[in-house]
Amino acid sequence: MLNNKITELLKVEYPIIQAPMAGGVTTSKLVAEVSNSGGLGMIGAGYMTPVQIREQIREIRQLTSNPFGINLFVPNEFKVTENEIKSANQFLNPIRQQLNLHQKDNFELPNFNNVFETFIEQIKVVIEEMIPICSFTFGIPSREVIAELKQSNIILMGTATTVEEAVENEKIGMDIVVAQGSEAGGHRGNFINRSQESLIGLMSLIPQVVDNVSIPVVASGGIMDGRGLMASICLGAKGVQMGTAFLTCVESGAHKVHKETILNANEDQAVLTRSFSGKWARGIKNKFILEMQKHETLLPDFPAQNRLTQDIRKTSSEQNNQDFMSLWSGQSPRLAKSQTVKSLIKNIIAEAKKINSYI
Amino acid sequence: MLNNKITELLKVEYPIIQAPMAGGVTTSKLVAEVSNSGGLGMIGAGYMTPVQIREQIREIRQLTSNPFGINLFVPNEFKVTENEIKSANQFLNPIRQQLNLHQKDNFELPNFNNVFETFIEQIKVVIEEMIPICSFTFGIPSREVIAELKQSNIILMGTATTVEEAVENEKIGMDIVVAQGSEAGGHRGNFINRSQESLIGLMSLIPQVVDNVSIPVVASGGIMDGRGLMASICLGAKGVQMGTAFLTCVESGAHKVHKETILNANEDQAVLTRSFSGKWARGIKNKFILEMQKHETLLPDFPAQNRLTQDIRKTSSEQNNQDFMSLWSGQSPRLAKSQTVKSLIKNIIAEAKKINSYI
Repeated sequence: MLNNKITELLKVEYPIIQAPMAGGVTTSKLVAEVSNSGGLGMIGAGYMTPVQIREQIREIRQLTSNPFGINLFVPNEFKVTENEIKSANQFLNPIRQQLNLHQKDNFELPNFNNVFETFIEQIKVVIEEMIPICSFTFGIPSREVIAELKQSNIILMGTATTVEEAVENEKIGMDIVVAQGSEAGGHRGNFINRSQESLIGLMSLIPQVVDNVSIPVVASGGIMDGRGLMASICLGAKGVQMGTAFLTCVESGAHKVHKETILNANEDQAVLTRSFSGKWARGIKNKFILEMQKHETLLPDFPAQNRLTQDIRKTSSEQNNQDFMSLWSGQSPRLAKSQTVKSLIKNIIAEAKKINSYI
Repeated sequence: MLNNKITELLKVEYPIIQAPMAGGVTTSKLVAEVSNSGGLGMIGAGYMTPVQIREQIREIRQLTSNPFGINLFVPNEFKVTENEIKSANQFLNPIRQQLNLHQKDNFELPNFNNVFETFIEQIKVVIEEMIPICSFTFGIPSREVIAELKQSNIILMGTATTVEEAVENEKIGMDIVVAQGSEAGGHRGNFINRSQESLIGLMSLIPQVVDNVSIPVVASGGIMDGRGLMASICLGAKGVQMGTAFLTCVESGAHKVHKETILNANEDQAVLTRSFSGKWARGIKNKFILEMQKHETLLPDFPAQNRLTQDIRKTSSEQNNQDFMSLWSGQSPRLAKSQTVKSLIKNIIAEAKKINSYI
């Protein structure tokens, strides 16, 4: 049951994909160690420059000869007004004061064309560096981009939070679709209905997606161990993508305060917020989330809000202060452990085999 | 794998519990047919009078000699002011007008003592009729009530939406705990944190609950077939409780419009609302939910709001008008079928056995 269409496609031993967490979590060591342990390591390159991407790919190649992948954010059109930025700064300034940061009252509006250009350059590096697997979040790239990647024989994975989004991923030619359940930590991948509503739990999402697409489905959200892997396979998925479980591993680049917070959290503390980035995302409730909650729906869209909170998140991290950091986590923090990647993957497989023998 | 602690405790062939849906869904025919087919039928008695309960138990006993159970709502203290009722009526009156109903401007405040008295009388009937299994939602009864039921050898099941709630259920002496995932249709069973936040998907909820209690755990929410049953067992549950899957069965007493709506719905149409009853519940989005959405958080608590909307729901049903009915559904409506209970249970078991043979 662990060798299937997906392990063949991805050329890995186990159907375990390390979720491409952006923002410094997916160090070269983490990605390489996942691939060395039989899973698929993934670079969370959403916020990286083309130069950084090229450097990291080369660094990982020094550490593993196994396949690994990369994830990019598909740029979405956004409308942000100067007034929205001004009012967001009014909400954020009291927090900046608590961190001894400069108050802000103006801000350069992000430009969609620049964001889109960077995306096209990222794609160019992916092709030039002949990375074997590329996944996408926040949307589906254009037919031209897809065609170009396919010509280079790159395996493509899309993200879906509903059946409709999964069907769109199949239509455009994705080889695999990652079904992101409501349990998932970090940003929601929904792109058709951008409201908060498509929060479908995996128990519902996987079988409904599986019944409506013919490409293999990967389950993602709250999966931490062999129980989650086997449950996903029973529901019809061919593999799993795991974020939080890898985030607390010793090789991950997540801040130690972030790791500690997850290791001490309960399942109902991982809440949804759009205050950090302008996009709904799940993280451990902290002072920032609570203080911004009442303004949450008034804040500008991604990526504007993300840039606005950059100074706050950076300074909070530097001060080892969990109050204003984005502490992304799925709904299973009680299952998180501080361990090596090797031991995590070994334990998942051992538990999966044990379940397989007694059910 | 299908014969375990729970099938022994409940004296049933399969670890499949029909969710005790209140409001006329659990007809005697439905309950009896589930028990006759090897599962556990359950009366959703939350809104029933003690007399009605006694009658239905006797009616079911004519139809099956197998065990079946009953579910009661644990009364919670509530505070409702005359002003809240008045403003709720202001929101509801335009809807009453659309249905040619009398406008309302006053309303008798529900009385907690009366609600509590009814609950105690319901318990009395349960004991007198020697029903073998009794489950609870919306809270945990007092130690006295628990002791009385236990003295009569009644197997007790509690409901939990978080680990903390599951632990409380175990502490008071429940024999089984039903873990209700965010996927579930109908009312949320949360009772410690009454806000909307404890929406934990089953992929996260089951293993975390299983790790923290020693009583058997039943998974509930979005489970519709053998895939869901086997996935729940992989996650550590001993059985499943299924609502929507039984609601669309031919034996169920759900309104035909309700059944049809589910059979034609998508997963992201099953949304959370507190507009019908004052308690958060999941149902298919309709005109009522959309029109009340902006007032939702201002409405009085359960059971006050539930009584206020009674005329609206009743008339809407009588007119076969789905616009103002409560169309409870879990997040897997695409998996719902119109079939007999016997065929549903037969299919679940056949599919579970098939999965068991290939994983």
